[in-house]
Amino acid sequence: MTSDTGASHISSRDNPLLKDLRKLAQDPGAYRKLGRIWLEGDHLCRAALARSVKPAIAVFSESFWPKAPAEWSIGAIKTVVVADSLLRDVSGLESPAPMGFVLDVPARPELLPDAPSVVLDRLQDAGNAGSILRSAAAFGFAQVIALKGTAALWAPKVLRAGMGAHFGLRLIEGVDADVLDSLRVPLVATSSHRGDWLHKADLPHPCAWLMGHEGQGVSAALEARASHHIRIAQPGGEESLNVAAAAAICLHASGAALLAE
Amino acid sequence: MTSDTGASHISSRDNPLLKDLRKLAQDPGAYRKLGRIWLEGDHLCRAALARSVKPAIAVFSESFWPKAPAEWSIGAIKTVVVADSLLRDVSGLESPAPMGFVLDVPARPELLPDAPSVVLDRLQDAGNAGSILRSAAAFGFAQVIALKGTAALWAPKVLRAGMGAHFGLRLIEGVDADVLDSLRVPLVATSSHRGDWLHKADLPHPCAWLMGHEGQGVSAALEARASHHIRIAQPGGEESLNVAAAAAICLHASGAALLAE
Repeated sequence: MTSDTGASHISSRDNPLLKDLRKLAQDPGAYRKLGRIWLEGDHLCRAALARSVKPAIAVFSESFWPKAPAEWSIGAIKTVVVADSLLRDVSGLESPAPMGFVLDVPARPELLPDAPSVVLDRLQDAGNAGSILRSAAAFGFAQVIALKGTAALWAPKVLRAGMGAHFGLRLIEGVDADVLDSLRVPLVATSSHRGDWLHKADLPHPCAWLMGHEGQGVSAALEARASHHIRIAQPGGEESLNVAAAAAICLHASGAALLAE
Repeated sequence: MTSDTGASHISSRDNPLLKDLRKLAQDPGAYRKLGRIWLEGDHLCRAALARSVKPAIAVFSESFWPKAPAEWSIGAIKTVVVADSLLRDVSGLESPAPMGFVLDVPARPELLPDAPSVVLDRLQDAGNAGSILRSAAAFGFAQVIALKGTAALWAPKVLRAGMGAHFGLRLIEGVDADVLDSLRVPLVATSSHRGDWLHKADLPHPCAWLMGHEGQGVSAALEARASHHIRIAQPGGEESLNVAAAAAICLHASGAALLAE
């Protein structure tokens, strides 16, 4: 796409859109206030397009804009071209990307009572949250329910770690544990110290896996709601696993059990 | 420990030890030049002590020092107390810890030809490297071999993600793939697109798992050395998994196979 017909150019640092982009890129919770998401770099933008997401704004650096594939701006409601140094300034990354999309925050989807699900209970780390979303999508889980106190799922760091998984999942965030009452699939709690060994367990399918806080694990109240309790054998005797590693193991076991049927 | 007998105090920002600590805390490869490692926070320091590591220097903030457990300085060759604001300045963390250890970089251990192992092939991300070390230790792997081009394993971010696993593993880093010739255990390559399905595979034990670069996977040359090739079924149809998630799944499957014997 070498023509820039229809694109507006930004060359002032004080432009209001740039101010918003800086907030969205650098403050994990800013999207909740601004109602928009910043998707940086071609990999994530392609993943969004592949799922028919329509960007509100396609943003390009001045030097990248002439070589940008047409599909990246054709789908967008608006196209904006930003001076290179200003767009670099927006990014929270060490290697800023020369393009990105602004998306409207998706409306919260209805909870599917029978879908294979993952429940995040006050998970703190953005990288862990993104990695779990990626594993959930890979292993055929349809929805992720993030209880209040969990990292903001549409934050840039979670989006990067999710590698596009966000667009293939129903993401229900900021909700109380009471919403779990409407799930008809059994709740399976992971624990570092109790329950059946995963490698011997008969896993229910579909089910909803509970993944807990990095330090504290799944809360006692939530554990009490679960019908199944699972732990992962650690022959090396370490005290615990990273929660995203534990989630990968459990979600794979669920997926593999299904494949073996 | 309320006495500070034997501790030296630092109150100048230009103190040479503080300069070194800042480098060690903030530059992932600094330990290779300086020959020392910075271990920040009580969790990692306890993990080192539990494995009988003797710190070269125990470092405390002035306000924390009076309440620091005696064991933390008794084992150290030297104890240093630093003005609170200066120690905060050392840290690369959002919430700097009030204590840490300086360790000498361990001598490179001999490679054990028959040990269950993990081989890292140009793995880039520090968080992934640390998470894989943690999973390796949990699932009974004895050594990790990091080929040239892999993230520096004793960097602060890898240490934090490893959560103490470093001290229970033989870590052999910065080596050429030729060292793998001396392994007598079979090499098992992970792939996103070829090989046997993990959930149906007969895994050799002990073995050495090859985990590759985040974008490129295991190199073709290394894949060609492997006697087994394994991939992970992804019923959700995503293109690939995070490498630390894939490693967790594979290493757990190896460990579980052993437990089931």
